[in-house]
Amino acid sequence: MAGDDRPVCVFDSGLGGLTVVRELTAAMPDENIVYLGDSARVPYGTKSLETVRRFALEDASFLMTHRPKLLVVACNTATAAAIDVLRANLDVPVVDVIHPGARAAVEFTDGPVGVIATEATVASGAYVDAIAELSPSRAVCSAACPLLVPIVEEGRPDDDPIVLHVLSDYLGRLQRFRPSALILGCTHYPLLAGAIAKLMGPETELISSARAAADEAKKFLQGPLAASPDNGAGALKCFTTGDPERFAHLGRRFLGRSIDDVEFVGTDELETR
Amino acid sequence: MAGDDRPVCVFDSGLGGLTVVRELTAAMPDENIVYLGDSARVPYGTKSLETVRRFALEDASFLMTHRPKLLVVACNTATAAAIDVLRANLDVPVVDVIHPGARAAVEFTDGPVGVIATEATVASGAYVDAIAELSPSRAVCSAACPLLVPIVEEGRPDDDPIVLHVLSDYLGRLQRFRPSALILGCTHYPLLAGAIAKLMGPETELISSARAAADEAKKFLQGPLAASPDNGAGALKCFTTGDPERFAHLGRRFLGRSIDDVEFVGTDELETR
Repeated sequence: MAGDDRPVCVFDSGLGGLTVVRELTAAMPDENIVYLGDSARVPYGTKSLETVRRFALEDASFLMTHRPKLLVVACNTATAAAIDVLRANLDVPVVDVIHPGARAAVEFTDGPVGVIATEATVASGAYVDAIAELSPSRAVCSAACPLLVPIVEEGRPDDDPIVLHVLSDYLGRLQRFRPSALILGCTHYPLLAGAIAKLMGPETELISSARAAADEAKKFLQGPLAASPDNGAGALKCFTTGDPERFAHLGRRFLGRSIDDVEFVGTDELETR
Repeated sequence: MAGDDRPVCVFDSGLGGLTVVRELTAAMPDENIVYLGDSARVPYGTKSLETVRRFALEDASFLMTHRPKLLVVACNTATAAAIDVLRANLDVPVVDVIHPGARAAVEFTDGPVGVIATEATVASGAYVDAIAELSPSRAVCSAACPLLVPIVEEGRPDDDPIVLHVLSDYLGRLQRFRPSALILGCTHYPLLAGAIAKLMGPETELISSARAAADEAKKFLQGPLAASPDNGAGALKCFTTGDPERFAHLGRRFLGRSIDDVEFVGTDELETR
């Protein structure tokens, strides 16, 4: 079998989407991946949906020049703001992080579902809508957690007292709601999974939207699209609108291994495309 | 006297610079002010100096189309990254927020000086250099406080337990250093002044870089430049690269009064200028 070695292209507002790349690589080690992290304009989650929609379209059209077989929107906020307009405008299948996460939660349990996400994602109602479509009478409780992204990017470990204090503040209402599943609706949050699990207790299963998205991508490559040839290891090529050294240094924690190939691309280059 | 009613133009990464506008208006109520907040790309303080330099030049050249008599860089990070290149390239006097703050601290005391600022401002060494130029043997201790900007933008009051916890974490080393003056080296920090003052104790005077910059601007208008005619109240016109409604809503806390006139300007418009 010849296979299809065109890359899977992935974008995010910054580093968080590397948790999706990590899951993609674990699920499909042969695939070539091109990643764009828009570090110069991070975060998306505290910005207006209109601003995020503009950025998402620019990010995607840059990646289209790499001729992907599949595009993964590895940013919950960008999915919430722009997934429909991306699907309508791009000539390639698009996997997002919200619908697979919602489906994974609904398939895991018949009980109530909690969602934690950025301010913009919660304001969009995207998770609530996606769950309602799959399971109309499901009880859902969402909480916006604006400080978690900067806390993760600051590099605080998940047993840091400030991390626990901030999480307790955000999760109070969800603890009383007692969800059977809690969706980590931002790609930064898997790095705090240990602390979140401890605060929510053993009755709540954490659902990683990053892992659910990787599973969804794999289905595409087992179905309508062909996988890469079985040649050992796919390559990872990264672009950032910020500083490549900083990206490689901080990104390591998100990817779980070192990042060798990072190139700068200016936001002006994205915008004039 | 006819006066000079050309505006004072001010830019910042987002809302923080409105604390400088507040001080400018208090010191010079007749002046017309045009403000640009780059909310789409906020924060600057966690990005590389090169990225911030690019943004600062774009922000400034947009404001130059409003024919200012004076430009105020109301962002410590932008000052740290770009003040020399701004002064070299612009045909208008430029007031920054770092040198006036450093001067105010050195003039207030002969004792040790503390600085709290963003990661990028601390990494640049701009305050340490500015103080050393004015007072070469002065003891200086700086602390980067990356979470304070998102905490202020989240709207937490300064008696919030999380604010106090995070501040205690950042200020521990400075408390032991016992500075006679502590420079609030980011325009967001005046909103946390109450909590910072409580933690540092009565022996430490807080120096607001926003107020020091306004005093510096006033000197220009009493010296080489003419003030606006004494006509009651100067106008404030704001531009944001983000959502104007959000800007007006959140900006109120920084400015201390409501914001009526906000217009959107795209980052693409800044970049193609």
